[in-house]
Amino acid sequence: MSKIVRIALDAMGGDHGPDVIVAGAALALAQHPDMHFLFFGDEKRVKPLVAGHSGLAAVSTIRHADVVVGMGDKPSQALRAGRRRSSMWLAIESVKKGEADVVVSAGNTGALMAMAKICLRTIPSVDRPALAAVWPTLRGRSIVLDIGATIGADAHHLVELALMGSAMARIMFGLERPTVGLLNIGIEEIKGIEEVKAASKILRETTVPHLDYRGFVEGHDIGKGTVDVVVTEGFSGNIALKTAEGTAKQFFHYLRDAFNNRFLARLGALLARSALEELAERSDPRKFNGSVFLGLDGVVIKSHGGSDAVGTACAIETGYEMVHDDLLSKINELTCPQPDQAAAEKVPGESAATAARP
Amino acid sequence: MSKIVRIALDAMGGDHGPDVIVAGAALALAQHPDMHFLFFGDEKRVKPLVAGHSGLAAVSTIRHADVVVGMGDKPSQALRAGRRRSSMWLAIESVKKGEADVVVSAGNTGALMAMAKICLRTIPSVDRPALAAVWPTLRGRSIVLDIGATIGADAHHLVELALMGSAMARIMFGLERPTVGLLNIGIEEIKGIEEVKAASKILRETTVPHLDYRGFVEGHDIGKGTVDVVVTEGFSGNIALKTAEGTAKQFFHYLRDAFNNRFLARLGALLARSALEELAERSDPRKFNGSVFLGLDGVVIKSHGGSDAVGTACAIETGYEMVHDDLLSKINELTCPQPDQAAAEKVPGESAATAARP
Repeated sequence: MSKIVRIALDAMGGDHGPDVIVAGAALALAQHPDMHFLFFGDEKRVKPLVAGHSGLAAVSTIRHADVVVGMGDKPSQALRAGRRRSSMWLAIESVKKGEADVVVSAGNTGALMAMAKICLRTIPSVDRPALAAVWPTLRGRSIVLDIGATIGADAHHLVELALMGSAMARIMFGLERPTVGLLNIGIEEIKGIEEVKAASKILRETTVPHLDYRGFVEGHDIGKGTVDVVVTEGFSGNIALKTAEGTAKQFFHYLRDAFNNRFLARLGALLARSALEELAERSDPRKFNGSVFLGLDGVVIKSHGGSDAVGTACAIETGYEMVHDDLLSKINELTCPQPDQAAAEKVPGESAATAARP
Repeated sequence: MSKIVRIALDAMGGDHGPDVIVAGAALALAQHPDMHFLFFGDEKRVKPLVAGHSGLAAVSTIRHADVVVGMGDKPSQALRAGRRRSSMWLAIESVKKGEADVVVSAGNTGALMAMAKICLRTIPSVDRPALAAVWPTLRGRSIVLDIGATIGADAHHLVELALMGSAMARIMFGLERPTVGLLNIGIEEIKGIEEVKAASKILRETTVPHLDYRGFVEGHDIGKGTVDVVVTEGFSGNIALKTAEGTAKQFFHYLRDAFNNRFLARLGALLARSALEELAERSDPRKFNGSVFLGLDGVVIKSHGGSDAVGTACAIETGYEMVHDDLLSKINELTCPQPDQAAAEKVPGESAATAARP
């Protein structure tokens, strides 16, 4: 367990650039001294920032990259301009080359997905990688996927998401048979879009030993923790995640307002300080930053584009845990079972695809 | 202003049935004594409940209905079994007949939409009605639509939603030129699904004097109040709304936990009581229950299926306000302008549709 975890950082990704990436790395390092960093980006900007944190400088290497993938670039544009020379590509490639164990980027999701897919490749049974978030719930934690790796999903892809998500829940939460729900606008079988209904039919009719399919769930079921794994297409998943983050921030704002505006309440807040701190800890969306790409042959973590240093540190720590406990390999093994397990575990791709495109 | 507001209630709608509908009506009546009620449902069940509230009984009429629209019925099933005889249909029809000013139902959204469309008809310029929610934000309130009236929207329908939503914001919030955003997974023009991109193009290129189009917004922008009107297709809108509700409930739970588990915090909560009450008032999702159908020739309010008495009362009060201030007529007038205004205000339906289906 004394093995060093080597983290590649796309120093230029995200809305705030190198400042928060470097500050986030310093915060993460304070929690886990067994980290080394490989920063990719504009050396002139990154070097002085890293030098500003003496502990960090001692465990960091900076690799210059000329090209920055813009937050508004199309994946095709990003690939054309940034393949083999952007900070994002080079950071991903360092995982491919075995120089780093994990890459963390707050950059353009579509470009990150496209570059990671080309550079690292998907594992054999997966067509399209997915982006999975660990979501705090009233029951503990759930996995929600896809939160924006790809837009639009047919029934076959939704089933694939269910398989990847349940593998992740088995490994990360130590569950034998995680419960899985499909996100929909009602729990009744007749509701929703065709792809979701078709996926539900496949999941009901296929016996997957390590997946307990529970039918449809609604938006409010995510926070309630009704199921361990919530499966949805990337557009609605991204909107759900960001809407929840917005609501949490709104609540914080109200809370601060309510306590700041009154003398007695401020006194009350002093007495209730540890309670309020616990509340902040449990509901701060930054603490849950860091989504995991599933289905890739390498650990890629997406940090929220708008993250500050605290959020960046959390994304880095997510990557650290994935590597430290060898989580992605275990998840990939379950997602892509060995031949002897395959008969029992695999949902037949053909029949899934057929059902999805009637 | 002493005019009585006559409210038709589908007493059988929702997950909890007549108990919460009647209790909700009693709560709403306590706030607004100038309400009369027409309850539609199983007389044997509804009558004793209404009789239990003496004030309510004095201003209520009960109309028996044999048929109940199931929460899981398809709209076509609901129409076959319940047209002209279900509590939902009869409640809607009472508005058509002029016996009631507004109908409130917590029943099956798809059935309510289908029945309201057939019974009340849409206004001339609207193809498909929309369900609009008033969403509390850090800036005040915003309108979010569609939150589930119809699934799937082409660019033309998204533009129609923008027009209906901005008309509602002008009337309800007294704004001259409400800001409007399209919900998407990023603010960059290249992101998202084709329909959303095409709608954005139309809204950018068409001059609508009373609508200030601001481009894409993301999930977290809703709670932030970035724009006055958030436009989205019904599936993602419904998921956003319910996810936000779930997150708010989760936060409440954490808050209660944090304060209940510690002696000092309980003492603090006593001192901060008015602050906590304000917080509850501002963030309780039940207080924002009651979505408005736009584009119909009659006021129809959808109450959340899982509402309790407090939530039901809020939905009834939303309906009361719509009628009391004649809001829907004013909104409809703006949505469907008179011929002299039409040239300036109307987005040409044909070119919109053409742009939407390339």
